[in-house]
Amino acid sequence: MLSKSITIIESTKTEDRIVAQEILEACLPITNTSRRVGISGAPGAGKSTFIDAFGSMLLNSNKSIAVLAVDPSSTISKGSILGDKTRMEQIVNHPNCFIRPSASNNTLGGVARHTREAIVLCEAFGFDYIFVETVGVGQSETMVKKMVDVFLLLLLPNSGDELQGIKRGIMEMADIVLINKADGMNSSLAKTAAAQVKMALHLFAANENNWTIPVLTLSSLEKTGLEEVKSRVDSYFLQMESSGYFTKNRTTQQIHWFEEEIVQSILSHLEENSKTKKLRDELIKQIESNQIDPVSAAEKITKSILK
Amino acid sequence: MLSKSITIIESTKTEDRIVAQEILEACLPITNTSRRVGISGAPGAGKSTFIDAFGSMLLNSNKSIAVLAVDPSSTISKGSILGDKTRMEQIVNHPNCFIRPSASNNTLGGVARHTREAIVLCEAFGFDYIFVETVGVGQSETMVKKMVDVFLLLLLPNSGDELQGIKRGIMEMADIVLINKADGMNSSLAKTAAAQVKMALHLFAANENNWTIPVLTLSSLEKTGLEEVKSRVDSYFLQMESSGYFTKNRTTQQIHWFEEEIVQSILSHLEENSKTKKLRDELIKQIESNQIDPVSAAEKITKSILK
Repeated sequence: MLSKSITIIESTKTEDRIVAQEILEACLPITNTSRRVGISGAPGAGKSTFIDAFGSMLLNSNKSIAVLAVDPSSTISKGSILGDKTRMEQIVNHPNCFIRPSASNNTLGGVARHTREAIVLCEAFGFDYIFVETVGVGQSETMVKKMVDVFLLLLLPNSGDELQGIKRGIMEMADIVLINKADGMNSSLAKTAAAQVKMALHLFAANENNWTIPVLTLSSLEKTGLEEVKSRVDSYFLQMESSGYFTKNRTTQQIHWFEEEIVQSILSHLEENSKTKKLRDELIKQIESNQIDPVSAAEKITKSILK
Repeated sequence: MLSKSITIIESTKTEDRIVAQEILEACLPITNTSRRVGISGAPGAGKSTFIDAFGSMLLNSNKSIAVLAVDPSSTISKGSILGDKTRMEQIVNHPNCFIRPSASNNTLGGVARHTREAIVLCEAFGFDYIFVETVGVGQSETMVKKMVDVFLLLLLPNSGDELQGIKRGIMEMADIVLINKADGMNSSLAKTAAAQVKMALHLFAANENNWTIPVLTLSSLEKTGLEEVKSRVDSYFLQMESSGYFTKNRTTQQIHWFEEEIVQSILSHLEENSKTKKLRDELIKQIESNQIDPVSAAEKITKSILK
């Protein structure tokens, strides 16, 4: 049923959008029951393996989990990541686990819209944890950060320049940093990397939520360090709930959603309204033949659609 | 005069926007005279040093250059990168060189708008080369790719996992890949890295423009490999101009600009129209007190502003 509902909200058909709206309206009052957890990291950092190991631990302690993957794909090759299900063997068949691969939308706005709605649905279905996994290209992180309560960043046990080179903007979003693959020969490398990240984090201004970002080492393969991750996630929620930041942050996110939704519905309107579409096509022809500049052309459109 | 004009187009004041529009309209017919070159790479890859060395070579052969920096800054700390001017010592005082640091806008849309307009102004001023340098976080690359004729990606002479880990989406945007800092002890590392990147590039689908992406090694410090970069850039323009891709790509970019501009002007309208602003503020209050969901609230706004 959840799968079907998500398929409806991912649909672009007008009749589906109406049903989707009804589903959402029914689901929206049922909130603040799930922990929304963003998981980011460069390709190869082991995001899916981590979710598999960590999720398995949660399932064993009678928690239910939903996993949503965000992949706005490559706009050029339209390539898509491997199905997450095949890489989450331990949890994929568990009755309390729901895994949903990314919708194959090619606009970031479209993916954002559907992921946000899928989160609301999963929360209404009562999942304890909703994991939102991103592909790690920068754009999707910024988007996911605005949808989750806590943001985990997975790093490999590298050190030096490459590590410092991790896109500054993404490091700043992390609430908890995890050095993954801290096993075998990598154990000491992981410790060095952790120390370096801790130093790097000192350079950033304190977060609004007064949370000191922990840097933990773990191995999804050997299942070490996972309990510590769980314990820090618990502390995070405890602290944010008692300080009121949890609620404040969710409200901010709702307002952001509202603003995004305005842009998205205006864009849909441009697509669907035949009169506007005709004017737009004409203006595109004029741009192509250099008869009008893009800024003046845009002004004509806005004048024609706005009251 | 160019500096002053760019300051006007970066302004958000209504009276400045009117003048800006006039400047743009006057500049737009004068196009296709400059080579628009995007330069991307992770922090530390040496983008500014490369522009300094490469730009210096161009200036010595009587070409004029403009350098625009794109930095949508960190949305969290509002930090900004060091002024580019201090890192471009060889070219900064040359009479045929114009350097403009990024506008300190905090929205990507705002930065995009101003950079696009600044490019048009620089082109109208007759610069042979317009370099657009990005901070390398993913979002800005996608944006810059849509504004330039050729996109250069700078990599460090690393190899293995970290290299493969370079955000796939960005690797795919490159028209020419440059392994920088191929000097001293790094020379052989750079060769290995170049070979690996070449292999990685084979995995991607061929580009629409039928261009085989060269992977070159160079040293901005020792000024080696720069002539080869220039020669490949020349080949690129020659091939794209003769195939018609150059013109086709610029037209596509103009249409993209038009579409972006529509969204931006609607957002400005929301900010500036007092009636709409009032409704929006009321709806935000209702969202905060959980009386309405963001999707329904957005619908009310669009109904009120659209004809």
